[in-house]
Amino acid sequence: MIVILKEHAREEDIRALCRSLEEEGLSIHNSEGAHTHILGLIGDTSRVDVDALLASAAVEDVKRVSEPYKKANRKFHPEDTVVSVAGRRIGGGHFSVIAGPCSVESEAQITGVARDVQRSGAAFLRGGAFKPRTSPYSFQGLRAEGLALLREARRATGMPIVTEIMNTEHIPLFEDVDIIQVGARNMQNFELLKELGRLKTPILLKRGLSSTIEEWLMSAEYIMSEGNENVILCERGIRTFEPSMRNTLDISAVPMLKAKTHLPVVVDPSHAAGISWMVEPLAMAAVAAGADGLMIEVHNDPAHAKSDGAQSLTPAAFDALMEKVRPAAAFFGKTLE
Amino acid sequence: MIVILKEHAREEDIRALCRSLEEEGLSIHNSEGAHTHILGLIGDTSRVDVDALLASAAVEDVKRVSEPYKKANRKFHPEDTVVSVAGRRIGGGHFSVIAGPCSVESEAQITGVARDVQRSGAAFLRGGAFKPRTSPYSFQGLRAEGLALLREARRATGMPIVTEIMNTEHIPLFEDVDIIQVGARNMQNFELLKELGRLKTPILLKRGLSSTIEEWLMSAEYIMSEGNENVILCERGIRTFEPSMRNTLDISAVPMLKAKTHLPVVVDPSHAAGISWMVEPLAMAAVAAGADGLMIEVHNDPAHAKSDGAQSLTPAAFDALMEKVRPAAAFFGKTLE
Amino acid sequence: MIVILKEHAREEDIRALCRSLEEEGLSIHNSEGAHTHILGLIGDTSRVDVDALLASAAVEDVKRVSEPYKKANRKFHPEDTVVSVAGRRIGGGHFSVIAGPCSVESEAQITGVARDVQRSGAAFLRGGAFKPRTSPYSFQGLRAEGLALLREARRATGMPIVTEIMNTEHIPLFEDVDIIQVGARNMQNFELLKELGRLKTPILLKRGLSSTIEEWLMSAEYIMSEGNENVILCERGIRTFEPSMRNTLDISAVPMLKAKTHLPVVVDPSHAAGISWMVEPLAMAAVAAGADGLMIEVHNDPAHAKSDGAQSLTPAAFDALMEKVRPAAAFFGKTLE
Amino acid sequence: MIVILKEHAREEDIRALCRSLEEEGLSIHNSEGAHTHILGLIGDTSRVDVDALLASAAVEDVKRVSEPYKKANRKFHPEDTVVSVAGRRIGGGHFSVIAGPCSVESEAQITGVARDVQRSGAAFLRGGAFKPRTSPYSFQGLRAEGLALLREARRATGMPIVTEIMNTEHIPLFEDVDIIQVGARNMQNFELLKELGRLKTPILLKRGLSSTIEEWLMSAEYIMSEGNENVILCERGIRTFEPSMRNTLDISAVPMLKAKTHLPVVVDPSHAAGISWMVEPLAMAAVAAGADGLMIEVHNDPAHAKSDGAQSLTPAAFDALMEKVRPAAAFFGKTLE
Repeated sequence: MIVILKEHAREEDIRALCRSLEEEGLSIHNSEGAHTHILGLIGDTSRVDVDALLASAAVEDVKRVSEPYKKANRKFHPEDTVVSVAGRRIGGGHFSVIAGPCSVESEAQITGVARDVQRSGAAFLRGGAFKPRTSPYSFQGLRAEGLALLREARRATGMPIVTEIMNTEHIPLFEDVDIIQVGARNMQNFELLKELGRLKTPILLKRGLSSTIEEWLMSAEYIMSEGNENVILCERGIRTFEPSMRNTLDISAVPMLKAKTHLPVVVDPSHAAGISWMVEPLAMAAVAAGADGLMIEVHNDPAHAKSDGAQSLTPAAFDALMEKVRPAAAFFGKTLE
Repeated sequence: MIVILKEHAREEDIRALCRSLEEEGLSIHNSEGAHTHILGLIGDTSRVDVDALLASAAVEDVKRVSEPYKKANRKFHPEDTVVSVAGRRIGGGHFSVIAGPCSVESEAQITGVARDVQRSGAAFLRGGAFKPRTSPYSFQGLRAEGLALLREARRATGMPIVTEIMNTEHIPLFEDVDIIQVGARNMQNFELLKELGRLKTPILLKRGLSSTIEEWLMSAEYIMSEGNENVILCERGIRTFEPSMRNTLDISAVPMLKAKTHLPVVVDPSHAAGISWMVEPLAMAAVAAGADGLMIEVHNDPAHAKSDGAQSLTPAAFDALMEKVRPAAAFFGKTLE
Repeated sequence: MIVILKEHAREEDIRALCRSLEEEGLSIHNSEGAHTHILGLIGDTSRVDVDALLASAAVEDVKRVSEPYKKANRKFHPEDTVVSVAGRRIGGGHFSVIAGPCSVESEAQITGVARDVQRSGAAFLRGGAFKPRTSPYSFQGLRAEGLALLREARRATGMPIVTEIMNTEHIPLFEDVDIIQVGARNMQNFELLKELGRLKTPILLKRGLSSTIEEWLMSAEYIMSEGNENVILCERGIRTFEPSMRNTLDISAVPMLKAKTHLPVVVDPSHAAGISWMVEPLAMAAVAAGADGLMIEVHNDPAHAKSDGAQSLTPAAFDALMEKVRPAAAFFGKTLE
Repeated sequence: MIVILKEHAREEDIRALCRSLEEEGLSIHNSEGAHTHILGLIGDTSRVDVDALLASAAVEDVKRVSEPYKKANRKFHPEDTVVSVAGRRIGGGHFSVIAGPCSVESEAQITGVARDVQRSGAAFLRGGAFKPRTSPYSFQGLRAEGLALLREARRATGMPIVTEIMNTEHIPLFEDVDIIQVGARNMQNFELLKELGRLKTPILLKRGLSSTIEEWLMSAEYIMSEGNENVILCERGIRTFEPSMRNTLDISAVPMLKAKTHLPVVVDPSHAAGISWMVEPLAMAAVAAGADGLMIEVHNDPAHAKSDGAQSLTPAAFDALMEKVRPAAAFFGKTLE
């Protein structure tokens, strides 16, 4: 068993730890390096309580190694990264709401929804032009035309736009997009990540459906290692065995990410649940757990949406949600952008 | 309940199937299309054996429409159940905090922690006397002696006690326990559930590590169908692929349960994460998502706890947590008991 | 990063390993004990390829510790355990088929199925008397009467019987049962495991739906540490996200268990898939992967079975299956009992 | 498709819903009971948007009856598809082994391994030129140079080559590749799938780590719906909670796929387990369960492999494996190519 001591562990704590381990019949091999002090425990460790070891003042960890990510690692970059777009900030105490329809469907639709969500307090407009759909027979998005309509909505409202990219070949089309989204299914599309790393545009990186937190941070690292350090992480639900909702929101990922990385963390309760009435309680949980923002699907007519109708809020429901998000963000110490 | 017939099912098999369904008191609506032939079963389908249906030569698939639980179902019992113990209420807007050590270790320990958590605002004292441990070589709890020490702590503080049962044979020992806990590993120990259903003591039923919400409610139904309707559900994390924490708190289960059942829902962030610094953000998320209470592990000396030290708060940390739970409960419209 | 060397690693392999690590800019702290030789690597290990390290002739493992189970551990008991009941053996090259209905329903049914499966080549008769059902409204088994009927079937055919226990209080009823089964839902019913450890009857321990292999072996250890070393492990499918079948057969568990433990391993393809037509290919896969036996549900009239009809074979289908199991077992070097 | 209406749905909402469904060319069977009101939709439902239906004010739930895939569906194409490349067939009773290193590293390496695996009986040579790696700091493959070296190995041995593509922009480089592989992480890279659907080259489509079988078949449908019907499915392990191996081989997927689709199914035991000693038992299980081929990683010097060393067989170990695959394929009725 390997015990990693805290870098600045007090000598007396280490001595106490070693004494108690020796009392359990273990002998200890000491391995002290520049930044690491490791104890190798020799003997019958089957009775050693790992939880108790972890609770010792001197112990940093048991059986673990250092993280494989560097640029995304809070250890080497202790202050929060704040991503700033057209005066709206995400991270470092600044809370931004991104709202809009799953798919861009027409100019009237996207501009109308943009005006609605702006009035209710959203900072960014989302809308899908390129749509990753499970079925080739489903609506695939308006593609380049959808991007043009988003620009129209931005021109009409002044809201910066967030939209998803699916392929490196489309990068030229995304030149003036404000935040480029990488969807869950492309979280490990490494060729795409590398190319996006060469841009300056902030990237909103969604978590893959069964990705570990470490894999997710490694995907952020792909982008950052190419030079683009403006990465926003977006938790959108993981796949589990539970059939009553589309996915399971991993709320624990929020504080875990805040500990491991300096990057801002946004939560998408719409995709996590896939059910519109669950958006509010999950949004509240996200604010409470320390998220830096929300991504919410809003559609003028969910029953006729071309995608994701079941999870979309109407503009009125979004307005009601924002009436709760505003004081909740303040209550939990965040400044709503 | 919907029965989808095989495309080329034989007429005689269909007739035999319909006859046996009608003998169970169900009426059948026939719906026949070009490639699909469907039977809609009308009546009380909670006793229909889906497996037997699937074994019929004529049947392709079976899909439930109505829930298989009745007593736990909010449809048949729209108002919230409020469990009331010694003047402390859980549910229906009343928020209770249950706190204490994982294991009862000594009179001084349990009475000391009881006094500490009471001072900070906990309504109930928890403490394990019978401990389900993965390893037979781990501390198994003080058992009957532990129950006696819990009674001592109750006598000293007036706090009602919550403790876990593992076996029907121990029921006599739990006679005056205020809330009996059924642990995650026993969520489908049906013999135990049935016996607990014959008591009047409220039961705190933890969710199994990979149980669906419906299975969990069916386990509540086991208790309730025997007569004991004082069931409190406790979400304590589910098992996923993520290795950075012990389990994954399923925060979405809170609003889903509030929709499906009238029973109170408590969240245990200590077991969900298994890491003490994660308790606060997850507790806040639970309050925000609509939980009716929290269950928190508190130990006077986590580094020497006989179990679960890594996730236990010190009394001081618990006090700091309660300083945040109090206004948060109020903010989200709950009355702290 | 921690590298654990093989106990009898050749000096030259260790030197080569260290050299290549040093060439990657790492320094090495050596920690040599009675049975363990550990290398602690100091420096930037983010580029070290763990897979490559594991492939080195000198390396036993990276980042791992010793297993917490002892009695079940093959390291301390290299030869296969062979469980022998009434002349039928399981393990050590002996392959046994356990067959029978999910539930005992009547004397005619259980004795009839017993005669059928015996004729086809089953070594053991299975049948449930105490039935763990998700719903309290489902058939719960004939209980004590079911055990009496199983004894009748044994008297009529001479087949030893395998049946499930759910509660310590029922142990006296199971006194002359040949193999006592612990179901998936009770795999961590530790009070039950401990009591069964005080018997001499072989225990067939099913894997919990989301249990790790290590947890499963720790449950075997609970039984063995009390004195009963006749434990048979039964893989019966794990819970995943896949909805097209009841569970996912973890075939990889078979070779992994054969490496980690000396206990026999049986596979239950009926419960794993929950669909009768999948039993044959999964049974073949189990034989091919090295299992020591199969547990198969057989019912005289699946469409009217009181439980698990969808996954039960008819006696004729079971006979056809055995026509394939017999040569397959021989092909893979096993002796069919 | 079945639409379950809410218990107290408004008549006008139901009428509006029915009207819009009929406008999509569907006819509706009405089935109304005491507490349930169900609509059975008759016609081509593969284009119906389930999410939009769920967003209707009248709808409680929607359940699919028929599969959403057509070209991949065995119902509409009962005979097995046989993919034939340079005289080697996969499917329809023909069993092919694909072997080679994870990464192409040098001409000597790839040509040497090609000669070795050819001598042992492999039909196809695999080798990665573009490597999807979790970390940006890991070896990313020789890319275009790797493809050139694969062609060299093909020229030297006559073996057709299988190699992975990661991006549409690389398609011109893959012009003369014999089978193009789509990796697990790109299973839902829909832009890539569509482009590959316009080629004639057979596509080996690996299953995503947490993809359902239906999602996988929908990804095959993406390729097929563009015109390329030469799709080979490759099961390579799914992600579960089990930490003792890299992934969990889903052997049940093999018979389930054989029932649902006519496409050939290959198993990759090397990636499934991530451990070289597990390759043989899992390969045997795959043959026994009905797979049409195997994909095996073989490296001349696993300890120095640039990727996946831990799971790679040496040429000698691969030769020993083929000594077992050959009679096993024959035993289970397959013709080894």
